[in-house]
Amino acid sequence: MERLEMMYEGKAKKIYATDKADEVIVYYKDDATAFNGEKKGQIEDKGVLNNAITSMIFEMLNENGIKTHFIEKLSEREQLCKKVEIVPLEVIVRNVAAGSMAKRLGLQEGFKLKTTVFELSYKDDDLGDPLINDFHAVGIGATTFEELEKIYAMTAKINDLLKEFFAKQNIRLIDFKLEFGRYNGEVILADEISPDTCRFWDATTGEKLDKDRFRRDMGNVKDAYIEILNRIKK
Amino acid sequence: MERLEMMYEGKAKKIYATDKADEVIVYYKDDATAFNGEKKGQIEDKGVLNNAITSMIFEMLNENGIKTHFIEKLSEREQLCKKVEIVPLEVIVRNVAAGSMAKRLGLQEGFKLKTTVFELSYKDDDLGDPLINDFHAVGIGATTFEELEKIYAMTAKINDLLKEFFAKQNIRLIDFKLEFGRYNGEVILADEISPDTCRFWDATTGEKLDKDRFRRDMGNVKDAYIEILNRIKK
Repeated sequence: MERLEMMYEGKAKKIYATDKADEVIVYYKDDATAFNGEKKGQIEDKGVLNNAITSMIFEMLNENGIKTHFIEKLSEREQLCKKVEIVPLEVIVRNVAAGSMAKRLGLQEGFKLKTTVFELSYKDDDLGDPLINDFHAVGIGATTFEELEKIYAMTAKINDLLKEFFAKQNIRLIDFKLEFGRYNGEVILADEISPDTCRFWDATTGEKLDKDRFRRDMGNVKDAYIEILNRIKK
Repeated sequence: MERLEMMYEGKAKKIYATDKADEVIVYYKDDATAFNGEKKGQIEDKGVLNNAITSMIFEMLNENGIKTHFIEKLSEREQLCKKVEIVPLEVIVRNVAAGSMAKRLGLQEGFKLKTTVFELSYKDDDLGDPLINDFHAVGIGATTFEELEKIYAMTAKINDLLKEFFAKQNIRLIDFKLEFGRYNGEVILADEISPDTCRFWDATTGEKLDKDRFRRDMGNVKDAYIEILNRIKK
């Protein structure tokens, strides 16, 4: 598969055209950002690690009946993916209160919620990706109630699969962010699933194994990403 | 009905006990606040006007099958109401984009939304009444999915009744805030419905006839409240 012109550069990835109109190459960078781009840095080899982690997780999801954009891993930093029209929403799943939600609601990190929380953010850098609800998402034309219903059904199934997948590696899946895309008239999972987009806590020690180590200047950032990759590739 | 000790003082109202355990007297003050209490002031006779306006609206809702806390108007500033346990949520209905939602989502005031938007805020002054969704509300124990379903069904019916009621007076109901309470095992409408809690635009001129005149220092605040009362009491 030949890599043609760059179509888009995001915070952590670049998207390149290929000679097939409906396939793209996703290239994973080492750039790290947090707090809507206010904090910027690099994590050595992050692109290599996140490409490896995401590829393994998306293969597992594909095998379990979740339709995703992932076709195959091409190289250390590259994946071949279906070309989707991104739904301009971040879908966040919170099994345990942490991060921005804990702060907004005055909860301690680790608070056991009475229900799994699904959240939507509207993907708009200028507005700071604001938290929205289903009515806002439909009201502004970002999606429809029908599409949202499919997205939530997929999200619930993905959460079940991921929780089980990581529990086997003694990792608690605290929360994570998903993005979806439209492809041939249906909605499929896009983007990545990695320590950039999930909170992973060691189930025994509670140690953070994710981007919070970068956000909060905790050190050993790369080691945490390596630890996640080593556990899941066993 | 005898007014006994004050049980609670809010930003715009005081609640007094009565000699009946399940009834309270609600006293309407002239105090006006905005932006979570950052802006403070007084609007002359607001308590008298809002008591009159709310009483007429709640009577209309009671007559149309909406269960509310309102029993009767007692005096210029007093209502007799059922004593409820307040559900710690503000339920906001937005027929047209305005105010904080327009700002958050980068929309022009007056933007015609593709669906009526219902929003929840968590009533907590220290947290600034944050916008939340259904999952947050249930996750933190503020309500249950069953109670929320009843609240949304009542809210939709109230919106239909209010839109029609105000349209007859050449007033566009842009958005409004409701609060609900628990009484004898069921959820009923509580609080007030007034220019403090609604956005009213004259349907012909677009003139604002609500608390935005106070929030935005537009002048003629009291006149706007009088205008609303005069139109609906015709």
